[in-house]
Amino acid sequence: MAKGFMELRPAAEVLELFTRFTPLTRVERLPLAEAVGRVTAEELRAAEPVPAFARSLMDGFAVRAREVAAARETSPQVLELAGEVRMGQPPPGPLPPGQAMAIPTGGMLPEGADAVVMVEHTRPLGGSAVEICRAVASGEHVLQAGQDVPGGGLLMPAGHALSPLDLGALLTAGLTHARVHARPRVAVLSTGDELVEPGAPVGPGQVRDTNALTLAAQVRAWGGEPEVLPRSGDVYAELLQAAQAGLARADVLLLSGGSSVGVRDHTARVLAALGPPGLLVSGVALAPGKPTLVADAGGRPALGLPGHPVSSFVVFQVLVGPLLDRLGGRARARLRPRVRGRLTQNLPGAAGRDTYVRVRLAEDPEGVRVVPVRGDSAVYSSLLGCDGLACIPAAREGLAEGDEVEVELLR
Amino acid sequence: MAKGFMELRPAAEVLELFTRFTPLTRVERLPLAEAVGRVTAEELRAAEPVPAFARSLMDGFAVRAREVAAARETSPQVLELAGEVRMGQPPPGPLPPGQAMAIPTGGMLPEGADAVVMVEHTRPLGGSAVEICRAVASGEHVLQAGQDVPGGGLLMPAGHALSPLDLGALLTAGLTHARVHARPRVAVLSTGDELVEPGAPVGPGQVRDTNALTLAAQVRAWGGEPEVLPRSGDVYAELLQAAQAGLARADVLLLSGGSSVGVRDHTARVLAALGPPGLLVSGVALAPGKPTLVADAGGRPALGLPGHPVSSFVVFQVLVGPLLDRLGGRARARLRPRVRGRLTQNLPGAAGRDTYVRVRLAEDPEGVRVVPVRGDSAVYSSLLGCDGLACIPAAREGLAEGDEVEVELLR
Repeated sequence: MAKGFMELRPAAEVLELFTRFTPLTRVERLPLAEAVGRVTAEELRAAEPVPAFARSLMDGFAVRAREVAAARETSPQVLELAGEVRMGQPPPGPLPPGQAMAIPTGGMLPEGADAVVMVEHTRPLGGSAVEICRAVASGEHVLQAGQDVPGGGLLMPAGHALSPLDLGALLTAGLTHARVHARPRVAVLSTGDELVEPGAPVGPGQVRDTNALTLAAQVRAWGGEPEVLPRSGDVYAELLQAAQAGLARADVLLLSGGSSVGVRDHTARVLAALGPPGLLVSGVALAPGKPTLVADAGGRPALGLPGHPVSSFVVFQVLVGPLLDRLGGRARARLRPRVRGRLTQNLPGAAGRDTYVRVRLAEDPEGVRVVPVRGDSAVYSSLLGCDGLACIPAAREGLAEGDEVEVELLR
Repeated sequence: MAKGFMELRPAAEVLELFTRFTPLTRVERLPLAEAVGRVTAEELRAAEPVPAFARSLMDGFAVRAREVAAARETSPQVLELAGEVRMGQPPPGPLPPGQAMAIPTGGMLPEGADAVVMVEHTRPLGGSAVEICRAVASGEHVLQAGQDVPGGGLLMPAGHALSPLDLGALLTAGLTHARVHARPRVAVLSTGDELVEPGAPVGPGQVRDTNALTLAAQVRAWGGEPEVLPRSGDVYAELLQAAQAGLARADVLLLSGGSSVGVRDHTARVLAALGPPGLLVSGVALAPGKPTLVADAGGRPALGLPGHPVSSFVVFQVLVGPLLDRLGGRARARLRPRVRGRLTQNLPGAAGRDTYVRVRLAEDPEGVRVVPVRGDSAVYSSLLGCDGLACIPAAREGLAEGDEVEVELLR
């Protein structure tokens, strides 16, 4: 079974190899609300300063700080009232010397004022005057024009994945649209004479094709656009034609299937024929995931994924996801949520390979317990209850009960 | 400013209060591929056993284990070949005693066989016989019918959020659709005389309404379906009418705006009028987020969110997100990705309130450093570079440089 996979390439080397594929140049201009989750294809700079005018950060009274420098609770400073700033309107006029102007949170500071005294530190004196009971520094409780973001200031570099966090600043600085990278298009082609459509009845020896739809869901979760191609039979010529047709329309080809030697041989030959340069990697030092194939099909990545459902899932997480991030224009790797916890039992690794173990997490007063889930990589149910993947690096023989491990969360 | 917010309710109490709202009963039946990200509204059970027949887990030879019990590398057992199992087809016949049948990974085990010898532990002897060089236990390298999932076996409880991980097992067990909870519909209504549409020019004193679109993006990120209503003016009657119209069509109402006292008073009166029972909470022990209002509008939740962009964002993460999870039918709280790291400076908390601090994360050889981001909660740019939120619980006065803190990731 290991034949033809003599030279297993470390996963880290395969990721390094992906740098030969250039990020996609297709760009779309989207309204900001639709751009969340997408990756910026340009620097985004403030069209206007934020705020556009000096604003009060509190409900209170706009003053000249130097005029209330001596104000104390016991010896308040009395100022005449010069009217009121209303929300959404310019102040009624500049602030005359020796006077204060009522101002709401977010109100525009009148000319002449340089600070705001909070309403809690004032006392009304009838309608036309107010007692100021505390001194304020110049600029206190004021957000100066352009203090948040100066006009033309950098809001977001290119290659940044927009999140709801980012929207406010972009909108307030006068932006309405952003140029973002197109989603990578991923063709998913499965092969296997034993496979039938999900939903169809299965005869003896047949199984349903589950990997294609699972891979499509993973592609979507990583921001790509999957296209599941019609399944191909296990015949070289047919598979090659289907692969070529898929690549003609997509940025990436995922060839799924091939747990048995015969199919894997076909797949490897097809990937070789998609060149130049063709097949780059046949066998990755991953457990599960050893029979993974990587090809460069004239500048586009094409991967052969193992047929076992657990292997296929893991290889996507470890290799395909980061590849999509690269093609999709991300300047930094995606933050992958992880938790640390302690192993509840010894875990042997596969010699010379990074071993990914399915785990469940349980929290108790002493911290997070990491419970390995057993099962051959053909066993679907081992994915059902699992919260994440723990990695035993190839350099280690295994991990011991009580060892601290980092778990990548999958839900 | 604190007037009317004398009794701040702890955030944990507010979350507890949300249990009065029952999960939505609207249910949809979706094809599984479209159900990823949604929450199951019923138990999902295997329509068929998985696998449907005993399958080989390896390329090799199907045998009777007891017939090769004495096989060793040095004294192999010779078995006659009884043909070959082909993928997707029933075996050519039962396995005759004293014979072996070639079988690929995933092939259907012939009647009579109870184990598979890996091809690596065999040697061909011309076309009609094979040397078995290693003994196998009964059941070795075989996945028995129903061993992965028995027919009728529970695959998923109700209230489970489907992830790509789950798809394979559901599809292979013969399921094609699932009944899932509808997405909670969330009406977002913003108010503020100073607000203008994003994209519109702003005059003196005016600012763009950024919270409505940011809240909508947050609603989407938490699995809800937002509807941004036309903005309402700061007039009680107008606001009440708009709120009622919004609630008539939605499951939740978010009223955004009201950083100034006048608007907050209107909002509180509107929420009270939406009862019975109406306003439940006016002021939450959160920093930022104190002026948050919570109401029960005849069985539907209605919240008044603070107008400052940072406050609005934080209150959504802390309160609204979990509310949507509850309404959306999740049995368990969502796993919220967190990382632990060490604070790079002292952090004071707000007395008596859970304080959420924006932070950036930096990784160095000693671990993750947690760098607080400064800025008033009216400052948009403080959200731009931030990776997550760290919480200083109300019970603590603050945290010290070097303290380990848990950061909830926001990207």
